[in-house]
Amino acid sequence: MIWFTEYQTENVGLTIKAKEVKRIKSKYQEIVVLDSYEFGKVLVLDGLIQTTERDEFMYHEMLAHPAMIQHPEPKKVLVIGGGDGGTIREVLKHPSVEEAHLCEIDEEVIFVAEKYFPTISSKLRDPKVKIFIEDGNEFLEERKNYYDVIIMDSSDPVGASEVLFQKEFYEKVKNSLKQNGIMVAQTESPFLQEEYFKKAVNEIKKVFKNVGVYVGFVPTYPAGMWSYTLASDSDDILNTNNIEKLKGLDTRYINEDIYKALFNIPEFVKEMIR
Amino acid sequence: MIWFTEYQTENVGLTIKAKEVKRIKSKYQEIVVLDSYEFGKVLVLDGLIQTTERDEFMYHEMLAHPAMIQHPEPKKVLVIGGGDGGTIREVLKHPSVEEAHLCEIDEEVIFVAEKYFPTISSKLRDPKVKIFIEDGNEFLEERKNYYDVIIMDSSDPVGASEVLFQKEFYEKVKNSLKQNGIMVAQTESPFLQEEYFKKAVNEIKKVFKNVGVYVGFVPTYPAGMWSYTLASDSDDILNTNNIEKLKGLDTRYINEDIYKALFNIPEFVKEMIR
Repeated sequence: MIWFTEYQTENVGLTIKAKEVKRIKSKYQEIVVLDSYEFGKVLVLDGLIQTTERDEFMYHEMLAHPAMIQHPEPKKVLVIGGGDGGTIREVLKHPSVEEAHLCEIDEEVIFVAEKYFPTISSKLRDPKVKIFIEDGNEFLEERKNYYDVIIMDSSDPVGASEVLFQKEFYEKVKNSLKQNGIMVAQTESPFLQEEYFKKAVNEIKKVFKNVGVYVGFVPTYPAGMWSYTLASDSDDILNTNNIEKLKGLDTRYINEDIYKALFNIPEFVKEMIR
Repeated sequence: MIWFTEYQTENVGLTIKAKEVKRIKSKYQEIVVLDSYEFGKVLVLDGLIQTTERDEFMYHEMLAHPAMIQHPEPKKVLVIGGGDGGTIREVLKHPSVEEAHLCEIDEEVIFVAEKYFPTISSKLRDPKVKIFIEDGNEFLEERKNYYDVIIMDSSDPVGASEVLFQKEFYEKVKNSLKQNGIMVAQTESPFLQEEYFKKAVNEIKKVFKNVGVYVGFVPTYPAGMWSYTLASDSDDILNTNNIEKLKGLDTRYINEDIYKALFNIPEFVKEMIR
């Protein structure tokens, strides 16, 4: 039995009791798998919690479904990062999907997810899914005007992921989307990572015509409060037009009530992005 | 410099770096004041974080304003617990208020709040405020059919506060409310304190005709996800009739968007109280 502490900032940490800790060194990062008492299995990359069995649905549903619903008929979908497979699993709940591509830089994350997190990685070998072990930045260069929806499921904007939070990158995302395609990105905690959050939203606004920011609970992420930014050049987004697509999706967090009020965010968050 | 850890359950903790720690023993509990790097001053009772300078507005606004807005003209308001003064401060933002009573069992909490938390306790000496150092349970016996709004700002349902989460207590609250009065209670974290949450909502439903549950972010509370339960025998609640009362309230969390979608809660929380 050990206590594992994630330092969310240099001044605050989440400490978790675990039965067992496995450490794996990949080419890119240290991968830790905790078998915790409170949250089930926990995936940690370079000291930062990426996902836990108990609350992963809150993050993956809120990341994937709004963009997938806003688009009238997403057939080709790309997830950048997200090697655990949770976002792909949610994407495949939409019957319109023909191709779901996953671009993950670190193959070892996928191996670890398949070994230790079967409920999260369950759809990674679905026939509609194709996995590319590549740098997201380079991958996008090769596919112009191809995707209906692109989902940025990246880790924090430090090290390898830093480039994924900059204007130049969002321009590539835009070029890889079809006209009227939709992008969504996880954009950090507005409360404990205010500067990252504001920067990401600001960079996205420089590139896309219509941008909407929403927030949701994720208990094991910093402050338990997470932000997502949805963007498109289509004028037919940020509405509730396709809400009937939620029916039959089998979700535990997002429902019609949450979807209808998606962009209703607390005043202090609104002020940050004004 | 020290690290202070709050154990939110026996398996998970929030650890906070502090410059200084003050410990005060009162008749009822151990009161700790941390001077933290991330959250400013932090008030801790018997090891559990009650409020921090940085995120207290998120809790106090969400606890006080919905009930104060739902009631067409709250003149007499009672806060049970809440010795730090944050809820009273929010209550006094409503111009209809003539009397705001605070019933706090532990006088020492008020002294500590006035000494170390001046921005939170700022309205405790307002002429409209009257402080009663009494047990909430006994206090209610003496005032029947008196209040327009009663706000339960209690600590966790262990020890002295346990009785405040039971049907018998909510019946007393109801008897102290005028006809069509409104009660609101903090009802714990649905994610990390599921049993307390379900029990509180269930007991409240046994007593009041109309009950609404809502949730909000509070980063320093367990899971960062907090619940509030609003209840009344009036049929004119759980609507947005008086939304114009929000204007000019000077809030940083609740706004028209949040208020309109107040009872829109995630599916897994809805299922807990079905």
